[in-house]
Amino acid sequence: MVTDTAQKITDMTIRGAGRIARAGAAAMRDYARAYPGDDLEDFRKGLKESADILIASRPTAVSLWNGVHATLLGVEDADTVDGVRAVVIRNADAFITRSEGAVKAIARIGANRIEDGDVILTHCNSSAAIGAIIEAHRQGKRFRVYATESRPWRQGLLTVRDLSEAGVDVTLIIDSVVNSVMKHVTKVFVGADTITSHGALINKVGTSMVALAAHEARVQLYVCSETYKFSPMTLSGEMVKIEEREVSEIIAPGDLPEGVRVFNPVFDCTPASHIDGIITELGLMAPAAVYGVMVSQLGYSVFGEE
Amino acid sequence: MVTDTAQKITDMTIRGAGRIARAGAAAMRDYARAYPGDDLEDFRKGLKESADILIASRPTAVSLWNGVHATLLGVEDADTVDGVRAVVIRNADAFITRSEGAVKAIARIGANRIEDGDVILTHCNSSAAIGAIIEAHRQGKRFRVYATESRPWRQGLLTVRDLSEAGVDVTLIIDSVVNSVMKHVTKVFVGADTITSHGALINKVGTSMVALAAHEARVQLYVCSETYKFSPMTLSGEMVKIEEREVSEIIAPGDLPEGVRVFNPVFDCTPASHIDGIITELGLMAPAAVYGVMVSQLGYSVFGEE
Amino acid sequence: MVTDTAQKITDMTIRGAGRIARAGAAAMRDYARAYPGDDLEDFRKGLKESADILIASRPTAVSLWNGVHATLLGVEDADTVDGVRAVVIRNADAFITRSEGAVKAIARIGANRIEDGDVILTHCNSSAAIGAIIEAHRQGKRFRVYATESRPWRQGLLTVRDLSEAGVDVTLIIDSVVNSVMKHVTKVFVGADTITSHGALINKVGTSMVALAAHEARVQLYVCSETYKFSPMTLSGEMVKIEEREVSEIIAPGDLPEGVRVFNPVFDCTPASHIDGIITELGLMAPAAVYGVMVSQLGYSVFGEE
Amino acid sequence: MVTDTAQKITDMTIRGAGRIARAGAAAMRDYARAYPGDDLEDFRKGLKESADILIASRPTAVSLWNGVHATLLGVEDADTVDGVRAVVIRNADAFITRSEGAVKAIARIGANRIEDGDVILTHCNSSAAIGAIIEAHRQGKRFRVYATESRPWRQGLLTVRDLSEAGVDVTLIIDSVVNSVMKHVTKVFVGADTITSHGALINKVGTSMVALAAHEARVQLYVCSETYKFSPMTLSGEMVKIEEREVSEIIAPGDLPEGVRVFNPVFDCTPASHIDGIITELGLMAPAAVYGVMVSQLGYSVFGEE
Amino acid sequence: MVTDTAQKITDMTIRGAGRIARAGAAAMRDYARAYPGDDLEDFRKGLKESADILIASRPTAVSLWNGVHATLLGVEDADTVDGVRAVVIRNADAFITRSEGAVKAIARIGANRIEDGDVILTHCNSSAAIGAIIEAHRQGKRFRVYATESRPWRQGLLTVRDLSEAGVDVTLIIDSVVNSVMKHVTKVFVGADTITSHGALINKVGTSMVALAAHEARVQLYVCSETYKFSPMTLSGEMVKIEEREVSEIIAPGDLPEGVRVFNPVFDCTPASHIDGIITELGLMAPAAVYGVMVSQLGYSVFGEE
Amino acid sequence: MVTDTAQKITDMTIRGAGRIARAGAAAMRDYARAYPGDDLEDFRKGLKESADILIASRPTAVSLWNGVHATLLGVEDADTVDGVRAVVIRNADAFITRSEGAVKAIARIGANRIEDGDVILTHCNSSAAIGAIIEAHRQGKRFRVYATESRPWRQGLLTVRDLSEAGVDVTLIIDSVVNSVMKHVTKVFVGADTITSHGALINKVGTSMVALAAHEARVQLYVCSETYKFSPMTLSGEMVKIEEREVSEIIAPGDLPEGVRVFNPVFDCTPASHIDGIITELGLMAPAAVYGVMVSQLGYSVFGEE
Repeated sequence: MVTDTAQKITDMTIRGAGRIARAGAAAMRDYARAYPGDDLEDFRKGLKESADILIASRPTAVSLWNGVHATLLGVEDADTVDGVRAVVIRNADAFITRSEGAVKAIARIGANRIEDGDVILTHCNSSAAIGAIIEAHRQGKRFRVYATESRPWRQGLLTVRDLSEAGVDVTLIIDSVVNSVMKHVTKVFVGADTITSHGALINKVGTSMVALAAHEARVQLYVCSETYKFSPMTLSGEMVKIEEREVSEIIAPGDLPEGVRVFNPVFDCTPASHIDGIITELGLMAPAAVYGVMVSQLGYSVFGEE
Repeated sequence: MVTDTAQKITDMTIRGAGRIARAGAAAMRDYARAYPGDDLEDFRKGLKESADILIASRPTAVSLWNGVHATLLGVEDADTVDGVRAVVIRNADAFITRSEGAVKAIARIGANRIEDGDVILTHCNSSAAIGAIIEAHRQGKRFRVYATESRPWRQGLLTVRDLSEAGVDVTLIIDSVVNSVMKHVTKVFVGADTITSHGALINKVGTSMVALAAHEARVQLYVCSETYKFSPMTLSGEMVKIEEREVSEIIAPGDLPEGVRVFNPVFDCTPASHIDGIITELGLMAPAAVYGVMVSQLGYSVFGEE
Repeated sequence: MVTDTAQKITDMTIRGAGRIARAGAAAMRDYARAYPGDDLEDFRKGLKESADILIASRPTAVSLWNGVHATLLGVEDADTVDGVRAVVIRNADAFITRSEGAVKAIARIGANRIEDGDVILTHCNSSAAIGAIIEAHRQGKRFRVYATESRPWRQGLLTVRDLSEAGVDVTLIIDSVVNSVMKHVTKVFVGADTITSHGALINKVGTSMVALAAHEARVQLYVCSETYKFSPMTLSGEMVKIEEREVSEIIAPGDLPEGVRVFNPVFDCTPASHIDGIITELGLMAPAAVYGVMVSQLGYSVFGEE
Repeated sequence: MVTDTAQKITDMTIRGAGRIARAGAAAMRDYARAYPGDDLEDFRKGLKESADILIASRPTAVSLWNGVHATLLGVEDADTVDGVRAVVIRNADAFITRSEGAVKAIARIGANRIEDGDVILTHCNSSAAIGAIIEAHRQGKRFRVYATESRPWRQGLLTVRDLSEAGVDVTLIIDSVVNSVMKHVTKVFVGADTITSHGALINKVGTSMVALAAHEARVQLYVCSETYKFSPMTLSGEMVKIEEREVSEIIAPGDLPEGVRVFNPVFDCTPASHIDGIITELGLMAPAAVYGVMVSQLGYSVFGEE
Repeated sequence: MVTDTAQKITDMTIRGAGRIARAGAAAMRDYARAYPGDDLEDFRKGLKESADILIASRPTAVSLWNGVHATLLGVEDADTVDGVRAVVIRNADAFITRSEGAVKAIARIGANRIEDGDVILTHCNSSAAIGAIIEAHRQGKRFRVYATESRPWRQGLLTVRDLSEAGVDVTLIIDSVVNSVMKHVTKVFVGADTITSHGALINKVGTSMVALAAHEARVQLYVCSETYKFSPMTLSGEMVKIEEREVSEIIAPGDLPEGVRVFNPVFDCTPASHIDGIITELGLMAPAAVYGVMVSQLGYSVFGEE
Repeated sequence: MVTDTAQKITDMTIRGAGRIARAGAAAMRDYARAYPGDDLEDFRKGLKESADILIASRPTAVSLWNGVHATLLGVEDADTVDGVRAVVIRNADAFITRSEGAVKAIARIGANRIEDGDVILTHCNSSAAIGAIIEAHRQGKRFRVYATESRPWRQGLLTVRDLSEAGVDVTLIIDSVVNSVMKHVTKVFVGADTITSHGALINKVGTSMVALAAHEARVQLYVCSETYKFSPMTLSGEMVKIEEREVSEIIAPGDLPEGVRVFNPVFDCTPASHIDGIITELGLMAPAAVYGVMVSQLGYSVFGEE
């Protein structure tokens, strides 16, 4: 089961930050449920191996790590196979429930931040951010939205489709126009790839420019993020590695003059000081509150990840 | 009893953020104490109805909500009428004690931030901020104070009276003079109406300008606030509604040329980035620490308030 | 004639920055026209004495100094009584014409900065700023205006009357509300009492806070100012003295608790970095361009004022 | 001749800011040279009509206005047909010479600002900025360049070709990556469409975001601009109209979901405070110096353009 | 034993923030272990007196206070002599272990923030900051370091020795050169003397200027600090007293002209807004997270220190 | 004479920015006065050669360049030997007079910016800045001064001596203390080595940090500078080369651990945006006004220096 799930994650049959996290948790639960023996040490070892296999199926996915590790919280305090099994099952079910509820909860909380007359800007195609916008529209609030094209993949085209299908008044702009409209924008909503323990945001490249422009024009920026995007590795100071991708995403290779290089990072980093609030399923918080949530609510620690 | 207290809150017999909060807690305690039966479900239902009645007596008062809800923390873990009753009574007494001690504790903590030679500026008429200033004076510290007039109600006249009666060296300025004196000011102390889960301050209109001017001149700003002004609704993203009041507070209606409108909001919103510290009865903290206090120390959660 | 004009300036029969400047220039011209003799030295001496008498009638009025001194530009290059007389008359006529045209020119230039959809904020009651706003309205542009009350004299009541009589959509706010509306404001227009050689603005107290709030929210601020408000004394580093006025403007003396002081300055100082443009009859310029205008266009110099 | 030139400008046979300016000046010169009569008033009238025809051929082109009007400076001081003719011819020749030398002079001055080890960022495809970069490379300086793609027209592809053909080490980035590389950039060079009398820059959309990001990271930004891009109309407060272009530049119309709007402005506006220096053929200056250049060196005035 | 340890702290036989903290905890443990009687009240009194004696041996040392008080956490919940003894011993051992591991943990976490190509700046001679730099070098990362001289004691000379002995590429600069190199710096690492409950840093004088320069140039600043430098007194608003030292540290008294004063503070205060992250043995956090760590992880409270 | 003066400048017999400038101007004047022939071309050639010899005696001294070139202004408009001679003599005398009067004029203007109660900070040992401070003291104004030590040469010791001998209340601080006192400082006065055409200041290393700290705390910074420190080469974009000096100024070579480098620049660069005003003998101006002064008052141009 574990290897099966790991395979599906690897070959992208299961994808999306939330889905792979829940699949990881479910695989751990199923392993625990099915564990036949009564050798506690062996059981613990099996759990650890299962966790390693699952995480290795997508090592850069913070949510997967979080989903798997969430199932092991408090396991060391149980001293029987049945006790450990119960803990893992309870943890997994709780994680899955919370994760499934998270996008919905974020939509509800985010929608509360939107008022009649707002002009919202969003970058790329964050389901959490879009969820909040659509929920506010569903509640009858009247506002309009700017969506960026989001080169190179142009996910902004998905965003304008999502929003217009929901009936939201939306205007498409290229990324360079963000600063031109910012004076008229009242709030920015973006998603998250990863959030660090000191409150920085790793998200689609361009997010940091949107945030800088918002900050300079005194426009509030909210990050919509499930807490399984909080990276426990950053507690230990690890840098989030920002992937660079193919030149061909930017320009057909034959069109590039010889000798010209291309720099094509997928994400960039927005500092905590340019973020007004992070909207999670555990509520609205300042970026600096992330450390406390990791430690007190999610149970992470520096030592825990050694 | 409950309806009696609710009535007194509605008709302003009981008023002031702290007093109504304590009255709410006391009414809950008295209801629990007096509950005659032994039907747990009925008791729980009665508690819930009492809470609703009390809160409805001043729905925008965060402190009242906090006082009432503080009495219900952990109630679901007790499974007998006596157990629930004990919890409610203990909670109410603790809340009342902490609340009564809060202004005094804030005065003591705030006074510690004041040094010989300081030039302090305060806006409007916050009893917590004034308490800290007077306590520092009582301790023999030598400093002086600027107090703003605080149009339209001119509560600054109360402030200069409070301070001068206590022997503090105080100078009155109109609101527009804040920036002219800011270069000479060393610290700003203001009160709070409401504090959000991401560390923003809702307070008397003009506070955000004072804070901006302080920030630009590198002057520290402290907010003196009991924790029952931390708004649990903001955990769920709710915006704090800012009341607009009568034109007549600004200008005699006959004096207003026809067609001229008046915009008269009572409060404004100061972002966390313009606040150096929040002084509460639970200690001095950065604005971003509010979320953690709400969750870990006050026991609020997004789900709890659904 | 000269003493007559000086008397009228002293006793406020002639008042207003523009009017006293033109009266000073006219008195110089009339003195020159009427000078009966042919003794060049005596004539020069008489001109100097006349200038001294006129300036002494309101020594803090920059515009008067400017009007009088403008008549003497190039006088030292003429070497006959008739030559000097011609210079003074030409100078005086030119100054008067330019001065009379200045407010109108500023209105026209300022109106060009206003667009459909603008939300303009103005402070106090500047005829130059109001002129620009009304001219834009007269041209059919659709926009709305916030006007501050401008304690303590509440000149904002004059402003809302001026604007509403002209048909402009105007909303009155108290001074503390400036920051609350700034996010929605697109441009700020203020007047000037004095402008220094390094581009700082001395204007009605509160202007510097409006400017700071505008700057922080990326809102453009324009100063509408005739060039006779450029202070030549500031070329020599002189500080503009900011008058402090009576306590009774702020509070009825009987209402002030004993021992409480009041600080009531009339003006404050806005730094060049918070000003986007100065609109003069010589065109729109950055604050730093003031020095060049003084030297190259108005003919002032450090040595000239010794 | 005049109508012929006007026609070529209209139909884009003559294009490019510099070329149309010189063509306008040459047409005025040729008209003056060929004027057959000796009726001064008629000649003046003819000059004025010629100027109007030429300017009407591309009314938004500041450089054309400047080229035509430069030929008329001082014409009112001449009082014979021959005198006027001589002035126009001299003016036209001077303008053409200066204009032709301007790009080269800017390249030389701009190259002086570049040092070994620099990392330069440029936006869009400014011949003046590219000229400076190539000149520095030609002088043997070692540095590297980031060039933005510059959606929607992707002129950045021209820029990387221009630079790589000249042997410059250049890296292409999409517009959203500007902020990611800014920490490593040492200087930004951009061109200008128009510069206002108070030092603001109108240039290819996205320039203002590049400038903001540079400013925030303490990176110097230089604007390379011939002085015929200084707009005399802005002396009178005129706003530079920013053209909006076709949706189809952004997205194939069929791909746009129904109801979605597109906002596609060509230019944006960068405030003077985000510009370190403007490099013109008249030297390196701060943005605030533009007014003085317009008035003292280019001979513009508010009255001159009425 | 307690008096013995206190004596050694007073006479500097035991010194260094970490060592005195551990000595204090050990003395408390040894006292508890050796307590002979069974009178709980007497035991509690003895513990309190021991704590007072130890703290009085260096009253300004936050780490000592923390080491001693850490041993008393939860003591009030035990109700037998043996129970209390067990708590104290467990607390002391835990504190000592964590403290001994802290510098090493910080080095490991800090090293994770360093990347190939970094240019790091450090001020004064912080063993925690230097530990992180050397650990990164040991891991094979390639980077270089600027170290400030750190007048007046010139501890920078120790720093360059420590780093060069470890093989790190290091350049010495005087304190005034910090801003000149900041544009090339990618990260700043400093140590801490004390950290307040609202996230301000008290550290070697000059740190606040380094931090300001870093902030202005968008360079990240990390503070390396064991959590026993978090000051519990600041929870109660206490100001950290900044010691002023001898004139002779700055100038030989004979060389100082008569009447000239010297101001020689040892530390300065860096606001939370200029700090990107605090690296502790409990992980990387934002400055605003300090309050939560104090309360939830270290067990401090306002009431606890009364 | 010319070679004699050049020799004295080279061997430092003549030194100081003002003195070498005046010596250069005087040598040009004397050459012109003594020129025996009547061959205009030969005379012009001789003047050019003399200028080259003089400038080559200290090629990095902007003031020398300015003194020599000031004598040649307008020379090309004279068409006889006598005419050219008269121009050179008049230019030289004017330059010498203005230069001699400059420090005094600056002292007088600068003193006007100082008020009772001011707290002034100065860096290094600028005779112009000190002159202004002493003049203000001489006028009876009461204020106090902080002077930085100014490592590595510690010229601050000269400054405190100069000021204390004049009776000024002065306190010495090390460079790292600047930010600690800045909150109490009201104005900063510094000198200049060179000022660029776009208003940047090159001055003693550390000046840029003082300016940054002043800017952050809203403290005005004035630069006291004779206009012969305005660099005409910067009109053409030339970078001011910042000299690096010996390691031994920082540390005795034997004390430097092997492999440790030292970076010891003499000057640093302060951007125009951190300067409130430049005080010259031609008056107080904003930094951006420097270009206009160079072109309109000092007669420099890009072409003039080719």
